[in-house]
Amino acid sequence: MKGALYVTDVAAFSFDKLVIFGVGLIGGSLARALRERNGTEGARTVIGVGRSSASTERALELGVIDGSAALNDDASLREALSGADFVLLAAPVAQTQPLLERIAPFLDPATIVTDAGSTKSDVVAAARAALGARISQFVPGHPIAGREASGVEAALPELYVGRNVVLCPLPESAPATVERVAAMWRATGALVRDMAPEQHDRVFASVSHLPHLLSFALVEQILNSPDAALKFSFAAGGFRDFTRIAASSPEMWRDVCVANRVALLDELDAYTAVLAGLRAAIEAADGAALETVFARSRVARTEWQEQRAGGVANGDASK
Amino acid sequence: MKGALYVTDVAAFSFDKLVIFGVGLIGGSLARALRERNGTEGARTVIGVGRSSASTERALELGVIDGSAALNDDASLREALSGADFVLLAAPVAQTQPLLERIAPFLDPATIVTDAGSTKSDVVAAARAALGARISQFVPGHPIAGREASGVEAALPELYVGRNVVLCPLPESAPATVERVAAMWRATGALVRDMAPEQHDRVFASVSHLPHLLSFALVEQILNSPDAALKFSFAAGGFRDFTRIAASSPEMWRDVCVANRVALLDELDAYTAVLAGLRAAIEAADGAALETVFARSRVARTEWQEQRAGGVANGDASK
Repeated sequence: MKGALYVTDVAAFSFDKLVIFGVGLIGGSLARALRERNGTEGARTVIGVGRSSASTERALELGVIDGSAALNDDASLREALSGADFVLLAAPVAQTQPLLERIAPFLDPATIVTDAGSTKSDVVAAARAALGARISQFVPGHPIAGREASGVEAALPELYVGRNVVLCPLPESAPATVERVAAMWRATGALVRDMAPEQHDRVFASVSHLPHLLSFALVEQILNSPDAALKFSFAAGGFRDFTRIAASSPEMWRDVCVANRVALLDELDAYTAVLAGLRAAIEAADGAALETVFARSRVARTEWQEQRAGGVANGDASK
Repeated sequence: MKGALYVTDVAAFSFDKLVIFGVGLIGGSLARALRERNGTEGARTVIGVGRSSASTERALELGVIDGSAALNDDASLREALSGADFVLLAAPVAQTQPLLERIAPFLDPATIVTDAGSTKSDVVAAARAALGARISQFVPGHPIAGREASGVEAALPELYVGRNVVLCPLPESAPATVERVAAMWRATGALVRDMAPEQHDRVFASVSHLPHLLSFALVEQILNSPDAALKFSFAAGGFRDFTRIAASSPEMWRDVCVANRVALLDELDAYTAVLAGLRAAIEAADGAALETVFARSRVARTEWQEQRAGGVANGDASK
């Protein structure tokens, strides 16, 4: 897949300094994509800031970043943020407000701040609370590009090629500011789409957050049963795929579920209603009703797969 | 994986005639395994019987079977079953009783009948109703080896290597009869395990039937929503894996849900209770409660994957 979907006629994206808070899979892949896929123009210093120095040291060793700063050191943070074109927040969403509050005193008026959080309404509220009138510097974003692996070792320059990146511009966002963020992501090979934060949260509650919750719940249910070991010993390929996402980060998904609880509960309640209908059909041994639903689902799932395979968003897919 | 896990010190399994009702993935793979993996001893005629002549003709063309018989032709069926060592039923489970009723008048007293159905209590009841006192000729079985693909074209001689095959011997089953069926499956490279039918149905309701139902339900829920197209357009890798099994056969899963409805409803109700607990935690923004469940699930899912990778049941996995 490497390079195949890279949009070569996008203007090279130039910047002087990018500061990434959280140099893991998402932040590290952005850094690598901009450095390795984006021509040779411009200065391009990438500074990493992490919760621990271990992660930024590893990123330095791997050449993913040029320098690092310490979050709890005012002088270090001030130097890192001075003259930055961009700040990317790539940490669990509950850290958005404390991070922005920490950054705000050192933020240049010309610096554009964006994020990579899986939820957006809460991120917007956190940004408004932390940035006040400087909210116009913030463009909420969400690259749809998780992987099984995490950490800076898993970062890939091709991670975003053909993937969707959702931006949720605010009323205060200047078009030129949004366009700069969009250009940054397009330079990685991503497809940039925009949505309102509420719409974003409803869509991802449905196609991402709910499946994660349902998958965690199935493993939990089996663990709770008296014959758990026997059940696991006979679990096969259907279980394997259904529960792959139950191996995801508990911290990240805790934050997502809490941050997006309004939309997630709506989707969960709608899902529970569908299940109740299927339960009634099973209890009544109403095979025709079951087959109707199963056949409709199969057609939709098969068409989705075909469209996906035919589109640009194929390959190793995101969470 | 080919051959790597084949238990070479198992005595070659010899038979004169095997009659398979339903020469698709499961029946065709048994035929191919016994013919291609099982040494060169013995006569080994395999006769296929299908709902349509198209499927048996294709199986003949592919060399999977040596001959075919027509289900609705007494003379053809009598000839097929005459002198058969084994009969395998490999059709959707709701067809078990009509098939056995059709077969019974032509069944030699020495013929052993087994099946490959995904549910077992209903199959036992159907077999008792159809076979009466000849129930001692019947050994219920379930090879855990579905694949995405179906049909005789998808049949593989290696399909059962390292896979579990569950047998559910009845009180009437003579040990030598059960052992003959076990030897047949072991000759394909499978691991033969035995369980009571009720236990089988409870285990597979949990690790197979419920996940299929939940996966179909998620696609159905999205289809029911007003912004279905938008949601599908942002669905990514988590959705892909969670819903892979929603592309499964509606007819097969209709039959499974109805046949195993008692155990499936028990599992569904237990699952719904787990979901209700998670719902309450989300509504209360109780991140600690969510993280506890998610972390426990992740550990269990990760250990399951590791044990599976370390065991013999790896490779392209079953449904």
